[in-house]
Amino acid sequence: MEKIRVAVVGYGNIGQYTLEAIEASPDMVCVGVVRRVPSKEGFPELAPYPVVSDIRELGKVDVAILGTPSRLCEEYAKKYLALGINTVDSFDIHTSIVDYRKALMPIAKENGAVAVISAGWDPGSDSIVRALMESMAPCGLSYTNFGPGRSMGHSVCARSKAGVKDALSMTIPTGEGIHRRMVYVELEEGASLEEVTKAIKSDPYFAHDETHVIPVECVESINNVAHGVNLVRNGVSGKTHNQFFEFNMKINNPALTAQVLVNVARASMKQQPGCYTTIEIPVIDMLYGDREKLIGTLV
Amino acid sequence: MEKIRVAVVGYGNIGQYTLEAIEASPDMVCVGVVRRVPSKEGFPELAPYPVVSDIRELGKVDVAILGTPSRLCEEYAKKYLALGINTVDSFDIHTSIVDYRKALMPIAKENGAVAVISAGWDPGSDSIVRALMESMAPCGLSYTNFGPGRSMGHSVCARSKAGVKDALSMTIPTGEGIHRRMVYVELEEGASLEEVTKAIKSDPYFAHDETHVIPVECVESINNVAHGVNLVRNGVSGKTHNQFFEFNMKINNPALTAQVLVNVARASMKQQPGCYTTIEIPVIDMLYGDREKLIGTLV
Repeated sequence: MEKIRVAVVGYGNIGQYTLEAIEASPDMVCVGVVRRVPSKEGFPELAPYPVVSDIRELGKVDVAILGTPSRLCEEYAKKYLALGINTVDSFDIHTSIVDYRKALMPIAKENGAVAVISAGWDPGSDSIVRALMESMAPCGLSYTNFGPGRSMGHSVCARSKAGVKDALSMTIPTGEGIHRRMVYVELEEGASLEEVTKAIKSDPYFAHDETHVIPVECVESINNVAHGVNLVRNGVSGKTHNQFFEFNMKINNPALTAQVLVNVARASMKQQPGCYTTIEIPVIDMLYGDREKLIGTLV
Repeated sequence: MEKIRVAVVGYGNIGQYTLEAIEASPDMVCVGVVRRVPSKEGFPELAPYPVVSDIRELGKVDVAILGTPSRLCEEYAKKYLALGINTVDSFDIHTSIVDYRKALMPIAKENGAVAVISAGWDPGSDSIVRALMESMAPCGLSYTNFGPGRSMGHSVCARSKAGVKDALSMTIPTGEGIHRRMVYVELEEGASLEEVTKAIKSDPYFAHDETHVIPVECVESINNVAHGVNLVRNGVSGKTHNQFFEFNMKINNPALTAQVLVNVARASMKQQPGCYTTIEIPVIDMLYGDREKLIGTLV
């Protein structure tokens, strides 16, 4: 069996878990890691791999898994697709997914490559569950309840306020897609909790949600990558009401994101050139193994 | 928009709910119902539709939805595929799905048609969830816990015993894929509960499960098409253990089966000729609506 040759682009949280998920995949090999500064320092697990600043130094690459921030995905994806390399990412700005897909589509097609975008857990695997639930009860309401878990965006926002040394914003689901924000702040010496609280609560990131600001001595000591989701739909199948569906998970957040990225990297090898979201790909293509055996076991 | 022309084959429980689901689908039209005896008697809702004994009497048919028992699916599917008509069914003998797929594949391909098999809720929509969960944590254990709900196969088996006038077997989940059977029996005059109980408990259908046989005056008065599932997986994403996933539903059983059949009928129009199970089809193809709008809303 010829293994799928995968490059990891970016080596933050997601990149590190992605390398683990590639190493755990029997059909893949990591051909190297791309970093702006191509150093292995502080990462002993990188010893067996080339670390480079330009993907072309890695020889033949089938798929580049982008562990870069969402706002950098498009730039990297376009560059790699133009080289005929498949790209996958976990771009998570929900309102821009349609435009992002449109932007990559022609480049992927022209270069005979495949891009799979927004393939973490939400957007990503949750999207498949949401679409499936909608298909099972086309009329009705769905709610995606996130957490309890750390919101990166909200934490960064809280950390940016004057007087805040470090911050962690937890997303707490209170039902029907409504969330409470629990913001744990480590204050700078002499900073006023009252003023920090006011600054956080008035930011558009928090203004619409019930928000609690709680001072702690050390944010790092409460940090935890656990996250979860509760996705529910009650709707109508045909003309029959009160069909109830629910999906729950409790997960290590970056580990699941990385696994989904690896799954769509595998699936990218089986799609026609173009740009895809997870709901446009057959689930079986994300799995390792003999097709008929998978059908026999899972269907 | 040209509507998808659908025929309903068989007009039992599934066929009746399928007609409702077609009527609720904006992109489909029911072109008629195929029954062995082509009568509308007792079914006022059939007034607007032709009821025939041979599908060729219906003119152009894009998809035939088979509401026939599983053991008859292959015969009907082969006949219709040979006419170039797509077929979809909810064939539910799990151990025969791979062979059934193999049997239809060449006929579908030769005639430029698409068959989607085993597309109820289990097998069917549950299969998609099982495959997705397996992809999210490739190492680990999954359990499908059915019910509480009526098992058709077990009810028929109990009803076949001497002294039993009518029977209803409820499947009760007790966890980890283990099930208890609650068998409600309406006895014939003079029949012995003890002997009926022995006959039921020693049948291979029941011998391996905890089984309770309970006499009732009237089985029809406790009949209910409610069913449910609890699908759980705890496994490893990459190298990270304790990733937990759960899918629950509480549903009207034939209404959901019918809706899934209608969804894959729609999806069949977008696949290349061949035979597919639900995990081989992109979920988006099962949904009605503009593709980019669906991506914008659901991803």
